[in-house]
Amino acid sequence: MAKKVKLMETVLRDGHQSVLATRMRTSQMVPVLEKLDAIGYDALECWGGATFDSCLRFLDEDPWQRLRTLKAHIKNTPLQMLLRGQNLLGYKHYADDVVEAFVRKAKENGIDRIRIFDALNDPWNMRAAIEAGNKCGVHVQGTMVYTISPVHTNEMFVNVAKELKEMGIDSLCIKDMSGLLAPYDAASLIKDLKKALGDDMIIDLHSHFTCGLASATYMKAVESGVDIIDTALSPFGHATSQPATESIVEMFRGTEYDTGLDLNAMRELAEYFRGVRKEISEEFGITPAHEVLPEVRHYQIPGGMLSNTQNQLREMGMADKFFDVMNEMPKVRADLGYPPLVTPTSQIVGTMAMMNVNFMANGMERYTMTSNEVKDLVRGKYGRLPAPISDDIRKKIIGDEEPITCRPADLIKPELEKYRQELTDHGFEGFSDEDVLTYALFPEVALQFFEKHAEPITRKVLSINSQK
Amino acid sequence: MAKKVKLMETVLRDGHQSVLATRMRTSQMVPVLEKLDAIGYDALECWGGATFDSCLRFLDEDPWQRLRTLKAHIKNTPLQMLLRGQNLLGYKHYADDVVEAFVRKAKENGIDRIRIFDALNDPWNMRAAIEAGNKCGVHVQGTMVYTISPVHTNEMFVNVAKELKEMGIDSLCIKDMSGLLAPYDAASLIKDLKKALGDDMIIDLHSHFTCGLASATYMKAVESGVDIIDTALSPFGHATSQPATESIVEMFRGTEYDTGLDLNAMRELAEYFRGVRKEISEEFGITPAHEVLPEVRHYQIPGGMLSNTQNQLREMGMADKFFDVMNEMPKVRADLGYPPLVTPTSQIVGTMAMMNVNFMANGMERYTMTSNEVKDLVRGKYGRLPAPISDDIRKKIIGDEEPITCRPADLIKPELEKYRQELTDHGFEGFSDEDVLTYALFPEVALQFFEKHAEPITRKVLSINSQK
Repeated sequence: MAKKVKLMETVLRDGHQSVLATRMRTSQMVPVLEKLDAIGYDALECWGGATFDSCLRFLDEDPWQRLRTLKAHIKNTPLQMLLRGQNLLGYKHYADDVVEAFVRKAKENGIDRIRIFDALNDPWNMRAAIEAGNKCGVHVQGTMVYTISPVHTNEMFVNVAKELKEMGIDSLCIKDMSGLLAPYDAASLIKDLKKALGDDMIIDLHSHFTCGLASATYMKAVESGVDIIDTALSPFGHATSQPATESIVEMFRGTEYDTGLDLNAMRELAEYFRGVRKEISEEFGITPAHEVLPEVRHYQIPGGMLSNTQNQLREMGMADKFFDVMNEMPKVRADLGYPPLVTPTSQIVGTMAMMNVNFMANGMERYTMTSNEVKDLVRGKYGRLPAPISDDIRKKIIGDEEPITCRPADLIKPELEKYRQELTDHGFEGFSDEDVLTYALFPEVALQFFEKHAEPITRKVLSINSQK
Repeated sequence: MAKKVKLMETVLRDGHQSVLATRMRTSQMVPVLEKLDAIGYDALECWGGATFDSCLRFLDEDPWQRLRTLKAHIKNTPLQMLLRGQNLLGYKHYADDVVEAFVRKAKENGIDRIRIFDALNDPWNMRAAIEAGNKCGVHVQGTMVYTISPVHTNEMFVNVAKELKEMGIDSLCIKDMSGLLAPYDAASLIKDLKKALGDDMIIDLHSHFTCGLASATYMKAVESGVDIIDTALSPFGHATSQPATESIVEMFRGTEYDTGLDLNAMRELAEYFRGVRKEISEEFGITPAHEVLPEVRHYQIPGGMLSNTQNQLREMGMADKFFDVMNEMPKVRADLGYPPLVTPTSQIVGTMAMMNVNFMANGMERYTMTSNEVKDLVRGKYGRLPAPISDDIRKKIIGDEEPITCRPADLIKPELEKYRQELTDHGFEGFSDEDVLTYALFPEVALQFFEKHAEPITRKVLSINSQK
């Protein structure tokens, strides 16, 4: 077995999502797509995550059209997307028929590989998407989000991975969205996974440089047998994004892990994307993320949440309570069964921590009041939690209510036709299946987008059909 | 032998020199000096490099007074400085008596450890400083600057290191100022050095994150037996500076290399220095360096030189010649005996490359005209070059002149008294030995500084004596 490491390039998705608020336009990608295709990456991540929402909301672009454009230019490299399991690209659980349709349409429009994850690592929330992927013949990458807690042992990760393998995934991803995975821990985890799943299970490590660890972590992972690592060309690399592609190529050059990729071609691409970064930064008035925040590993919350929490506390006149809230965070996380902190659990835990600190400052008990999201988490509506919640905490939050014990989506009736009908009720006609899915995911934004791009009289949706 | 790795903290010197043009004031350091002292760093780099010049030129501070202030607050941690061998902190070779006096005064004013380097790695240029250090009992760290060339083999580095060891150094530093050292190369170099010099020769690796490699390089170096690595607290870490201290502590936490240092205390310090970074950035209107530039490793020139060269070419109306100049750079470097590129050799080679490109564009030969610096380099005035220069190139540059074959400083007569006399001739009196050294290093800037701080009538230098 060749030890050559493969690179998955994120400049078209996670790179700009991490450092420039997902604001890269399709027109800024097109001029270099053939060049990207020629590099020899294992895949190009270019869709999903926040790109779908951002296309509609900020860039006045149809995300499906973006995908077709990318596909038209990239003939050799697999196109990859990121999908949040039963949530798809939205913020709630969708019915299985919507999940099936979305995965199928993604494949039809150009996606070759789907990375499927769930905030709680509950395979139940990934099952429908995995099955849909297998059915339509797209490469399915099952994913575990990485986090640190007393229950997140290698053994637990191995068990999740085994379950995903049984569901029929084609490869496995460790998604370390906050860059918490330390080098020696990565080595041990990769070895345990390879041992349990077999050497032929392809493992992809996706990390972020946020805590200043990811490059060294990649090195240890590669030495321990990881197959693919995710990188972003340098103008969209490091900081809170992936380690820079060129740096990783240099790191392994001349060793048994040599990527064999052409650095000269990458330098040209990097120069181009440095210009794009400048354009985006100027157009949207955003400073590219540039800080490395090692404290993220201590608080174990996503990088962006640190400053958000500070801002929110300031607005609430609670700025002096920052460290109290930070210290309350791990307590709430423990109480709620150690969910990994990633959208939406990070927001749910963060808000609860702030509320608790406020209650205590006013002589009240923790969890005196709780949000619907916290209640749903305890009810099992988000899926199975990594650790059980104590009776005491459960009673405080949902009283005598019984949590569900089934797959949350089993409780959701088919809803694709409902969305189709709603779109008709809004006066649109001639829309495509893709339009229905767009509407299902982001109804308000979709309606605005359709209005803007519809023919004045018929309100016929033009976004898709006119370009097909 | 314990494998625990030791950290040398650079936030007070290389950290702000790398990312904020050496603009940190003593007053911005003082509030946390006791806290820095309590961390348990192997040493705190806080003086030398560009700080001396910057104190006088931009901050209206007496660098000697800075040193005494730091020493008054830091009682336990060794204070370290960076010294450019026979150049001291200036840009020319000084006589041995000036070198001896400077090293002694540095020690007397508070320095415990002197890192001594030379741009060409010529031990001749480090000898006077090393001997002066040994004489006055300061810890002497002999240094090799790292570079990549056909002649810079491990064997060559080992030979330089052996020579330095014979001169009586207390420890050895590998100074990788452009962050070129790749992880696996570091492992091999450290092992070869330890083998040749003995396990008891303490080795310190100083790198920069410029090319995105340094964290992984540190990890490999530590696994290969390096004793000390240099880091900067996160607000002044990464980018073109050292890897962040907290990230490195996290990287080795719980392993056999665990630094044992307190991350909570570091987080507090990082928060403080994040504020300082903001202050400096606002006061001087400088954006902190934030880019990682993997292409630096290809061109093998210091990070700052990339943008400088682009700007210079633009001003000369030669912007389209950038890649020609970049490609000429390695040719000039080869012609001139593969000098490592660091002040002043980087500027000398860079200018020559630009001139050559210009000559060729105008139908002239390479080296049609050359600067005095290039001539002096060929004459051996900067010291022994890593590789011989061909007769052909030598004749083009200095004709029939014979290069010198001795230690360059052997040709310089004692000059301390001359500087003292000049200061008197300028009308000053009552100045200290430190003032004479300040004047010797930066005559014009020193005179302005003394003027400003002298008593109006007597022109008595107050900067030192009034505060002793």
